[in-house]
Amino acid sequence: MRNDGRNRNELRPVEMVTEFITHPEGSVLITVGNTKVICNASIEDRVPPFMRGQGKGWITAEYSMLPRATEQRTIRESSKGKISGRTMEIQRLIGRALRAVVDLNKLGERTIWIDCDVIQADGGTRTASITGAFTAMTIALGKLVDKNVLSELPITDFLAATSVGIDSELGEILDLNYLEDSSAEVDMNVIMTSKNELVELQGTGEEATFSRKQLNQLLDLAEEGIHTLIEHQKSVLGDWGSHIVKNLEKEG
Amino acid sequence: MRNDGRNRNELRPVEMVTEFITHPEGSVLITVGNTKVICNASIEDRVPPFMRGQGKGWITAEYSMLPRATEQRTIRESSKGKISGRTMEIQRLIGRALRAVVDLNKLGERTIWIDCDVIQADGGTRTASITGAFTAMTIALGKLVDKNVLSELPITDFLAATSVGIDSELGEILDLNYLEDSSAEVDMNVIMTSKNELVELQGTGEEATFSRKQLNQLLDLAEEGIHTLIEHQKSVLGDWGSHIVKNLEKEG
Amino acid sequence: MRNDGRNRNELRPVEMVTEFITHPEGSVLITVGNTKVICNASIEDRVPPFMRGQGKGWITAEYSMLPRATEQRTIRESSKGKISGRTMEIQRLIGRALRAVVDLNKLGERTIWIDCDVIQADGGTRTASITGAFTAMTIALGKLVDKNVLSELPITDFLAATSVGIDSELGEILDLNYLEDSSAEVDMNVIMTSKNELVELQGTGEEATFSRKQLNQLLDLAEEGIHTLIEHQKSVLGDWGSHIVKNLEKEG
Amino acid sequence: MRNDGRNRNELRPVEMVTEFITHPEGSVLITVGNTKVICNASIEDRVPPFMRGQGKGWITAEYSMLPRATEQRTIRESSKGKISGRTMEIQRLIGRALRAVVDLNKLGERTIWIDCDVIQADGGTRTASITGAFTAMTIALGKLVDKNVLSELPITDFLAATSVGIDSELGEILDLNYLEDSSAEVDMNVIMTSKNELVELQGTGEEATFSRKQLNQLLDLAEEGIHTLIEHQKSVLGDWGSHIVKNLEKEG
Amino acid sequence: MRNDGRNRNELRPVEMVTEFITHPEGSVLITVGNTKVICNASIEDRVPPFMRGQGKGWITAEYSMLPRATEQRTIRESSKGKISGRTMEIQRLIGRALRAVVDLNKLGERTIWIDCDVIQADGGTRTASITGAFTAMTIALGKLVDKNVLSELPITDFLAATSVGIDSELGEILDLNYLEDSSAEVDMNVIMTSKNELVELQGTGEEATFSRKQLNQLLDLAEEGIHTLIEHQKSVLGDWGSHIVKNLEKEG
Amino acid sequence: MRNDGRNRNELRPVEMVTEFITHPEGSVLITVGNTKVICNASIEDRVPPFMRGQGKGWITAEYSMLPRATEQRTIRESSKGKISGRTMEIQRLIGRALRAVVDLNKLGERTIWIDCDVIQADGGTRTASITGAFTAMTIALGKLVDKNVLSELPITDFLAATSVGIDSELGEILDLNYLEDSSAEVDMNVIMTSKNELVELQGTGEEATFSRKQLNQLLDLAEEGIHTLIEHQKSVLGDWGSHIVKNLEKEG
Repeated sequence: MRNDGRNRNELRPVEMVTEFITHPEGSVLITVGNTKVICNASIEDRVPPFMRGQGKGWITAEYSMLPRATEQRTIRESSKGKISGRTMEIQRLIGRALRAVVDLNKLGERTIWIDCDVIQADGGTRTASITGAFTAMTIALGKLVDKNVLSELPITDFLAATSVGIDSELGEILDLNYLEDSSAEVDMNVIMTSKNELVELQGTGEEATFSRKQLNQLLDLAEEGIHTLIEHQKSVLGDWGSHIVKNLEKEG
Repeated sequence: MRNDGRNRNELRPVEMVTEFITHPEGSVLITVGNTKVICNASIEDRVPPFMRGQGKGWITAEYSMLPRATEQRTIRESSKGKISGRTMEIQRLIGRALRAVVDLNKLGERTIWIDCDVIQADGGTRTASITGAFTAMTIALGKLVDKNVLSELPITDFLAATSVGIDSELGEILDLNYLEDSSAEVDMNVIMTSKNELVELQGTGEEATFSRKQLNQLLDLAEEGIHTLIEHQKSVLGDWGSHIVKNLEKEG
Repeated sequence: MRNDGRNRNELRPVEMVTEFITHPEGSVLITVGNTKVICNASIEDRVPPFMRGQGKGWITAEYSMLPRATEQRTIRESSKGKISGRTMEIQRLIGRALRAVVDLNKLGERTIWIDCDVIQADGGTRTASITGAFTAMTIALGKLVDKNVLSELPITDFLAATSVGIDSELGEILDLNYLEDSSAEVDMNVIMTSKNELVELQGTGEEATFSRKQLNQLLDLAEEGIHTLIEHQKSVLGDWGSHIVKNLEKEG
Repeated sequence: MRNDGRNRNELRPVEMVTEFITHPEGSVLITVGNTKVICNASIEDRVPPFMRGQGKGWITAEYSMLPRATEQRTIRESSKGKISGRTMEIQRLIGRALRAVVDLNKLGERTIWIDCDVIQADGGTRTASITGAFTAMTIALGKLVDKNVLSELPITDFLAATSVGIDSELGEILDLNYLEDSSAEVDMNVIMTSKNELVELQGTGEEATFSRKQLNQLLDLAEEGIHTLIEHQKSVLGDWGSHIVKNLEKEG
Repeated sequence: MRNDGRNRNELRPVEMVTEFITHPEGSVLITVGNTKVICNASIEDRVPPFMRGQGKGWITAEYSMLPRATEQRTIRESSKGKISGRTMEIQRLIGRALRAVVDLNKLGERTIWIDCDVIQADGGTRTASITGAFTAMTIALGKLVDKNVLSELPITDFLAATSVGIDSELGEILDLNYLEDSSAEVDMNVIMTSKNELVELQGTGEEATFSRKQLNQLLDLAEEGIHTLIEHQKSVLGDWGSHIVKNLEKEG
Repeated sequence: MRNDGRNRNELRPVEMVTEFITHPEGSVLITVGNTKVICNASIEDRVPPFMRGQGKGWITAEYSMLPRATEQRTIRESSKGKISGRTMEIQRLIGRALRAVVDLNKLGERTIWIDCDVIQADGGTRTASITGAFTAMTIALGKLVDKNVLSELPITDFLAATSVGIDSELGEILDLNYLEDSSAEVDMNVIMTSKNELVELQGTGEEATFSRKQLNQLLDLAEEGIHTLIEHQKSVLGDWGSHIVKNLEKEG
């Protein structure tokens, strides 16, 4: 039995509140268990210098934690004057993942800024950020279609993320909370589309290793979890979710 | 008539949600009109080096805005690698204000960390931060009394803050929203106790000036607003509010 | 009796040496008691990016202390690699204050750089900086009029600053020196014009509070001090002082 | 046919020169095709603060490129004053990977510093760094055994890394050079032990995705490459390689 | 004829005002032509970590220019957040030079902090800094002898510095002002004792070269200038100058 | 007898490997005894902003040490986030020295970037860097002549550097290794051309002094060493060396 009573293949309760904040083009508060992340998507009508003149768009992400998102207060990165390696890894990961399901040519010379601010942390903040950021980004792009700035939603598939890991007693488990994450032998973040296509896979045996058989068992768990997360996205996105389904069928 | 229909001496709607986040000892989401700030108070069992060995406590504050708290996305200070002058001013102001109503000797060698994170901004973020931070701090200190770590609440009076200003057409107004703040000739932040004692007064005529008569009219408005804000604090703080009232009576 | 024998409403001896340094367009060494600040004004023929194309000028200020301006050597901010919150507050204050008495439209697209370098500190360095900086700025602008670059002096009034405070034994006092400042219960910086108009008011009760009655007594003291300081400015500025007096009369 | 004439499952020529530099406890110049990395291992007789008093050791890694390791000169990170996100990711990856095959308890309170300095880059610099760093670290630890500072080599298995990827025309390929890496649809870094245990797996579809079937084909290729790399390590490490083989047999 | 009417072997007018600022243990305003530097010496009763426990003292120097010390305003290093290479070179030079004439064992575990702040620059700021810093340091150490903290002045000889250079038309010249320095083919800074011993010699042919014969002619000029500067030091130092002369005779 | 058996006027063994790395236009690994430096020269088709529009070129240098180039591991400057004063001094020295023998007008609006990366240090790293950098720069410029981008080699003379010093027992010695450098009373770096013209001379008596007679003896030693180093350059540069000899004769 897991420390919060879940089954090995059970996600924590998931909720996504849209329009959480009024200024951003897309704003989602995602809750996964006790992890809460504000995901905001902003659209800027230009691209960074290295992308100019190619007619393509860009997606970039920033990630941060409030000091008391954690049990012990952590020092602000703005006070330290630099961003930690962990933050940089997560920021790069979120941006890269979202770019995999957006047709940057159809986006045109625009930048989507994703801001993921963790207000409460209990494990899985980076995967919750990706799942919530996809939703916020879709809403922001949907508004551009509504305003006829874009003729169609340039999103090729749904995208969600979760963590899986190996516990020395329980074996493979889905969606680790902070305590589980701290004691897991293997920790893996999986980012997938609705068609079970992998977008990113990061598996780490911190002071441990894992076999290819275990890898496949972990991916089975992840697939389940990601399907559930995408169902949540669909219910929140409404018509825009249907639009993505149509995009998938067209391409199909 | 003001741009949001208020009277000149009318505060925007105020709300304080306590226990907004679970980890901090005190956590308040304060809403003043469309301004929303998460105010967290953390207690640390030691003081900074310059305070050690004096048997006294310390209060320090940090302030930040999410990038899309504002209409236009602002760059994170952690990305820029340094804190702006504006942020520093506000942080110092919050800490100084709270220290004026806490008996640091009774606090003992502890640091109260205040984190004010603006998630949505519409003017008055620094004054909302102070009003919310006072509430979060009281809750955090109240828990120390509950646990018998402190024998009494080391708070000498209520403390709240609001802005007042001079509009070229409307004259003196209370609690400026962002549009009003942008066009005001004079902008003043007032921090006061329940006994009408001033804790801090910052009046600025950006490219303008003001007379002493106008100053007194502005302070009359501010007094009204601060009394209303302190009523909100009392209703939210419950027993701890009564405890402060008793402290006031004892001191009498 | 104050620690240096002054009356409660008495300024320390004031002196302003003009042309202290040869390169700047305006250069003043201001001495207020044992506080000495070199105030230099430089004119640059362009404005910062956020001001371009508006036909208006800008005024920006920098403030620094030599390491041994103080009793104990302080570490250089250039060695620490960053500017303290205190320095930023003072820099912003000086710039804001001067902008209140300069007609930025008449200045045209020029920047006035004010550099206030404290070479000896004994309290009141920020207010001495403002009083000296106004003088240096007027000299620099006067030279532009002499060279027919500007047709008139774009200064609307004199501007000076002083500190007032509340001592637990002496009550309200004017122009605090370092020892007085360290023990004062309330510390207030007042920036005013010759017409008794307030430009900026910053009153702080560090671990104390003050009533509105006390506020008014402090402002009475400040008015007196500022009138004396402006007399010093007039005697040093000569014809340029008369030019400002005429501007005042025109405006009526 | 690949751009350098290799088969899809063929590594580039590999060479490891030991004792490349005289000062470090372990020093290896690893060459993989046209990629050349100096890998130095230093032993320090203490651990970082967060590890003290646990009787365990630590391994930390730094990675850098000479400015002209690349076709276009890149700016030094020391000149920019900060380390890029890419460098941080690689540094963290190298340290984490090596820690998975070292018994930190047997190492005792010592830190192994790994420095990977790329002097020539043609793709695969992070995986070459790991393969070379493992060799340098083993040499450095071997010397501690020789000096009887350690009673046995605290290494549980060999460790090597390579990249695999998917080319739109060639399909799955092993050990991508720079040109291949730039055009690959999927890029994966695999770190494995001699027993086919995964230590870290990082698969990324930059603007693309991959199926679980493709994942397994990529891992088949990676296994082959890693076995060859470990053979190189064994031939270079001599007796210390045999020592690791014995450790593996004991553990059985 | 030189641009200011001097002969080739003529120093500019030199003046040293002692006790220029009241807080430092030693304070000298040195004027060399239009170059003016405030040189302050502070004594601290401990040494930096790398010197502790050796019973020896240390001397360290910092150098800075006010923004308008120069014709064009320069940006403050505190604003840029880092110290330029030029500043670092000069700081290291001043400290190294002074250490050559102080018996650090006799100084005991104390640090002498030298602060050279250029308030007006017209060439030769680093050499004026050294000549002034020696004087300020001697005064500060003299006070320690007066207070019986030190039993004797731990200074082995006088120390002064000047520049020499080669002008394409005038040939070798002494004590270059800014214009001369800008056009000189060769620029050399010479630091010497009263016994003609070289302490530091930095000769640079920026886009030019110089022969050994020219080197010797430059050193002849420098010797003359340094003797004159040391006479100035003697007249300013009074008894402390005589003390150094006695130290020289004892050493014989 | 010196600690490595050399005579007082004997250089350590010198070797220069050209084309050490493939990407740079010029690449030399210089070995002087146990000191090894990779010197790379890169050509960029533009100049820094302060040089634009003058039709002239520029040469700039960067210098760094691998962490384990030294006996004790040193912290990377990229990790510290800033470049040390020592590094800045050396970088400026290398650039300045090379500019003295290049006709920047003939170079045209191009920048030569010199990167000197010390991979093993045993004293004399800055002088070895200069000797190696001259060679790498000549190769890079030679290739521009080969490609007819330049019509002739814009180099006016050979340039090499060495160190000389005074040992308390041995007296004047040439080309100090690390141990000799650590104990020398006087340390001098000499940069010269083949015609015995001095380009830069930096003599320092750290806590000691030297006479003009000693200076001349040191320069005699340096001349010898530099002639030998230039012979090495000639043998490595082949035709490009002859080209420089012709340039010298033309100028003659």
